[in-house]
Amino acid sequence: MPGNSFGRVFSITTYGESHGRAIGVIIDGVPTGLAITEQDIQGELDRRRPGQSEVTTPRKERDRVEILSGLLDGKATGTPLSLLVWNENWDSSAYEPIRHLYRPGHADYTYQVKYGLRDWRGSGRASGRETVARVAAGAVAKKALQASGIRIRGYTLEIAGIQAEEIDLAAVEENVVRSPDREKTPIMIGRIEEARHSGDSVGGIVEVIVSGCPPGLGDPVFDRLDALLAHAVMSIGAVKSFEVGCGVQASRMRGSEYNDPFYMEDGRVRTETNNAGGILGGISTGEDIILRAAVRPSASISKAQKTISVEGRKETIRVSGRHDPCIVPRIVPVVESMVAVTILDCLLVQKMYLSFH
Amino acid sequence: MPGNSFGRVFSITTYGESHGRAIGVIIDGVPTGLAITEQDIQGELDRRRPGQSEVTTPRKERDRVEILSGLLDGKATGTPLSLLVWNENWDSSAYEPIRHLYRPGHADYTYQVKYGLRDWRGSGRASGRETVARVAAGAVAKKALQASGIRIRGYTLEIAGIQAEEIDLAAVEENVVRSPDREKTPIMIGRIEEARHSGDSVGGIVEVIVSGCPPGLGDPVFDRLDALLAHAVMSIGAVKSFEVGCGVQASRMRGSEYNDPFYMEDGRVRTETNNAGGILGGISTGEDIILRAAVRPSASISKAQKTISVEGRKETIRVSGRHDPCIVPRIVPVVESMVAVTILDCLLVQKMYLSFH
Amino acid sequence: MPGNSFGRVFSITTYGESHGRAIGVIIDGVPTGLAITEQDIQGELDRRRPGQSEVTTPRKERDRVEILSGLLDGKATGTPLSLLVWNENWDSSAYEPIRHLYRPGHADYTYQVKYGLRDWRGSGRASGRETVARVAAGAVAKKALQASGIRIRGYTLEIAGIQAEEIDLAAVEENVVRSPDREKTPIMIGRIEEARHSGDSVGGIVEVIVSGCPPGLGDPVFDRLDALLAHAVMSIGAVKSFEVGCGVQASRMRGSEYNDPFYMEDGRVRTETNNAGGILGGISTGEDIILRAAVRPSASISKAQKTISVEGRKETIRVSGRHDPCIVPRIVPVVESMVAVTILDCLLVQKMYLSFH
Amino acid sequence: MPGNSFGRVFSITTYGESHGRAIGVIIDGVPTGLAITEQDIQGELDRRRPGQSEVTTPRKERDRVEILSGLLDGKATGTPLSLLVWNENWDSSAYEPIRHLYRPGHADYTYQVKYGLRDWRGSGRASGRETVARVAAGAVAKKALQASGIRIRGYTLEIAGIQAEEIDLAAVEENVVRSPDREKTPIMIGRIEEARHSGDSVGGIVEVIVSGCPPGLGDPVFDRLDALLAHAVMSIGAVKSFEVGCGVQASRMRGSEYNDPFYMEDGRVRTETNNAGGILGGISTGEDIILRAAVRPSASISKAQKTISVEGRKETIRVSGRHDPCIVPRIVPVVESMVAVTILDCLLVQKMYLSFH
Repeated sequence: MPGNSFGRVFSITTYGESHGRAIGVIIDGVPTGLAITEQDIQGELDRRRPGQSEVTTPRKERDRVEILSGLLDGKATGTPLSLLVWNENWDSSAYEPIRHLYRPGHADYTYQVKYGLRDWRGSGRASGRETVARVAAGAVAKKALQASGIRIRGYTLEIAGIQAEEIDLAAVEENVVRSPDREKTPIMIGRIEEARHSGDSVGGIVEVIVSGCPPGLGDPVFDRLDALLAHAVMSIGAVKSFEVGCGVQASRMRGSEYNDPFYMEDGRVRTETNNAGGILGGISTGEDIILRAAVRPSASISKAQKTISVEGRKETIRVSGRHDPCIVPRIVPVVESMVAVTILDCLLVQKMYLSFH
Repeated sequence: MPGNSFGRVFSITTYGESHGRAIGVIIDGVPTGLAITEQDIQGELDRRRPGQSEVTTPRKERDRVEILSGLLDGKATGTPLSLLVWNENWDSSAYEPIRHLYRPGHADYTYQVKYGLRDWRGSGRASGRETVARVAAGAVAKKALQASGIRIRGYTLEIAGIQAEEIDLAAVEENVVRSPDREKTPIMIGRIEEARHSGDSVGGIVEVIVSGCPPGLGDPVFDRLDALLAHAVMSIGAVKSFEVGCGVQASRMRGSEYNDPFYMEDGRVRTETNNAGGILGGISTGEDIILRAAVRPSASISKAQKTISVEGRKETIRVSGRHDPCIVPRIVPVVESMVAVTILDCLLVQKMYLSFH
Repeated sequence: MPGNSFGRVFSITTYGESHGRAIGVIIDGVPTGLAITEQDIQGELDRRRPGQSEVTTPRKERDRVEILSGLLDGKATGTPLSLLVWNENWDSSAYEPIRHLYRPGHADYTYQVKYGLRDWRGSGRASGRETVARVAAGAVAKKALQASGIRIRGYTLEIAGIQAEEIDLAAVEENVVRSPDREKTPIMIGRIEEARHSGDSVGGIVEVIVSGCPPGLGDPVFDRLDALLAHAVMSIGAVKSFEVGCGVQASRMRGSEYNDPFYMEDGRVRTETNNAGGILGGISTGEDIILRAAVRPSASISKAQKTISVEGRKETIRVSGRHDPCIVPRIVPVVESMVAVTILDCLLVQKMYLSFH
Repeated sequence: MPGNSFGRVFSITTYGESHGRAIGVIIDGVPTGLAITEQDIQGELDRRRPGQSEVTTPRKERDRVEILSGLLDGKATGTPLSLLVWNENWDSSAYEPIRHLYRPGHADYTYQVKYGLRDWRGSGRASGRETVARVAAGAVAKKALQASGIRIRGYTLEIAGIQAEEIDLAAVEENVVRSPDREKTPIMIGRIEEARHSGDSVGGIVEVIVSGCPPGLGDPVFDRLDALLAHAVMSIGAVKSFEVGCGVQASRMRGSEYNDPFYMEDGRVRTETNNAGGILGGISTGEDIILRAAVRPSASISKAQKTISVEGRKETIRVSGRHDPCIVPRIVPVVESMVAVTILDCLLVQKMYLSFH
């Protein structure tokens, strides 16, 4: 209950601080017989890893995953999978000079007040490094979903207000910002470079599409699929909003525009439009599930900021170090992972319901 | 686990269909000693009730709450509170002619595919009537929060694209749309009337402010306060997006603009701005918590719509009956209730942490 | 989490005090399509009801169950089932004279210290009357289990040290103590009568056999089937021990005696003996599951007892009223019910695992 | 939900197979500020370790624990504690010859049928080696309980029918069987030696006393303290029964004998006897909590046993290797650990209730 577990059947429990010995996750409820390799997981971790490109932090972390339990001959046995990534070469000395200051936009003050003490070394558990465990778990969930024909694909819809207009999924992994619009990509990169040069940061919007999802996923009334997805995605540190389908725009439409008409196609119930984003009454319809998460600009900036010390004195702070001027491209696999974990969890629950029909 | 419970310590379990015998909620974890009366709850139910005004459905439902357990001499004993509202005068005959059709925008198809059967009478469990139980539970949560100096206030920020510019909380309960902007109120009402006359519906945006909330609420990493609030609010049927603080706009700001500078005021840590909406690292800061939910236009409209029958035949449907042309004003207390339940739940968890300091 | 819910998938939440308005249960996770009538449930409630015979309390309570939600045309829709039993003709005046005394063997003191206040009227939530809700839920679970060929049968193995030697299931419901041994029945009844005449009470042992249970139920390591059953059965007020299979006797056997040898019968894996009680490694084997619960003598006796008042004064108490001199026969359906809820819950979880094979 | 987590607030999640790379546990809900060292945990692991004495398996496993997260300067930060023990020098070759046989008394068959595959190497997850993680978690719980003045002490009450008559806690850790009765110790050891020489095994009974426990722990109705303890203790592989207080004997007493009279001592409510074992109505009374667990004889014996192969052929099996002829002395710290985790969990929940008084 204290917050480090997520999922009901496919259930993940994570641990680790940015400057601790390791980051890891225990995954319970892995479908038995699922083939999993360290390479499957490593591929996803590499998409999240710092130092991938000029627009991310230049810090080098190898983030090699090790599987400690749960497999026999490469297949899941139904027992918990333990995945571990050692933290390497971390050095807390850069944090020493500012350990008595509350960094604006960071969780320093709130952790202090909640827990009565706080790990000042690299943000501790509040660091984005915590998402290593989410991406590792997400890789396992994706593998299981693939076996059911379900794909989760994310991309950068917007950076610093520059929005992708063309959605070409083939383009996404070819550019450093994970933009699906080849024309807008250099503009997005430009905005990040501008922010970096002025010691500042920018945010953006991540969009994720779930395709191949069967109808029937989600558990009304409180565990509606959209509610679970919102929980999953809003639990990522930098995310400030969550939308499904038309999202906010739905509130400005008329019912006659918004309602998606049903029709039959090849014996399957479909909708002509997909304003609902693949979810009706909290249950998947079988259409693509489409969701968006707005990511705030990174909190760590080298520009001078006003703040206070732990003792309450006025201070000016500059957060030096090699921080991401824009975290959006690296958050894409994190959002995908949380979506994958949620969808798989709902799929497993739904298998029970199907057994009654 | 099958979805009808919410909350970890202050935990609610609801039941009931729109055309069943009753709607109710069991509340576990009510703070002992809390004074609760049926009047406390009735006041909130009356805010949600249909037939309040010309802009809602003219259906008359008295929605009288009864407390069946959990009190001694009007005070909570620590045992579960059972709240029940009988359904009165319902008549399913209006649904007979369309029981074999999947209504667009409704959960008819998805319930059918999930459960293998569906209650066609007035949407069954997928009806907005289910929120009676949420509002009853929310009334109890609000009463407990008041005792800790925490207030939850919601209003209609936007209807059909018309946005309130002035936020005057005193105005909210004085007008039928719960608008905080007296000037915009008649325009909002006009948009609803227009929609009604054309057999259509409109949506809008609800905003909620939590004031007096202590710092320290929320449980990283997965049960961050914003994640739990997102889960709570997105579990309401018609809600399609959730934002906290600046929300989507945060993604278009620079870090230097977005980060809220800390300062001291009367011995208390404050922030000069509140772009974060009162939450940092998933934990409350003590500033007002501000959140928004976009509500889609009501699904039930009398305009003709294309759809299919349960057997897959093309059909045209007109959903007659006395439906809300705009559900936003009646959803305000529902959003408040889910926020109240979540905040109280986090407050109870936080009491444990405080006992360690 | 505060303790009034049980079960993971087939999940029950109960409420109600002995002298409150009603006792009830919300059941989530009922298999869709299951046919349920109030008669199905009433039959089980009648087995638990007071006033059945001369060996139980002469109090008359009709305990009529009402189904408030979750059915369409008599079949479960997958939404929560709400079952309610009104409390009738209760009169708290008999408790007035002793409301300031802590009754020995009762929960008066512990409720007071836990919650800071306590419902003194007929033991409140700590009353055995709370088990009405368990039996109602158990009736639904039994109905679902029957559809899978699983039967739960309980009986009185022992009363006041008199043990049944012959286990004739046909005899159980023919006598007032639910003894499976026709010869021992009058002796058992005699012991209860003796206790009653001296203003005292006696206890006994309930045994339950689950037959037709498929192999594969139970979820190691913490949710082993025997652990879940122990949790379920030990949560019944008067139960002081739980055993599965040979139970305590197993600890006095040699491994070569205790281990049940495997063999094949009609293509099915069987064991020659069943010392393990149908569970190996926390997972059902397919053999009968056999368990026992020891029930202490009823706490309410009219004999004088030493105690203290709420203020700490020495006092003598006589608990007058129409109490059961032996609760064992009426606890039989309660133990069965908790076993049924647990087995069904595990069966539903196991349906997911089977979907992977 | 799939079974590898236990506890509501102090919540443990374990992983690892006997012949996998590591065994570990993630502990969430550790009280912040608690000082914890690897030595604290190692001391308890050493009490569980094989090779301690002539009556246990001669296998040598160092079982060195490493703390991977959750501490700052040796104090718990409120974030999850990750404890890891590497498996060393394991060799699965001894299991090769019997990998196609179902060992009687083992979980081979049930794991196969549940999961559709099974880790045949040293029993996999069904191995007693899994309890390494429990003992590591228990050590942390004990440390936290000590700070509240609560002690958990276990011992061997009985081995092969030889029961300790004197309970001298000082004697327990001085002898290899953890017997509290110096006179009975050599007899107990003799019974184990006899069993070993005949290629057989024996069982026994573990008793645990919780002293210093405040009143108020436990959450009726389903999470009564005795129910949670039963769940915790029965989840240990070899345990076949659970008793609290007088246990089975309570069922043979009269109410007037059994009920513990209340009295006042130094301003504190006490009971003259403690037949209830420190729990009334599922809530702790403040008296010592006393419980017992019966342990079956070890399943692995070298005597020939009848069984079948995976394909259903009749076979004879001899489980060679260095197995414990009696697991009871090594289970003592495991039972203590599960009790410690449960008591701490209830203590944390109770802190919330106390905040309302």
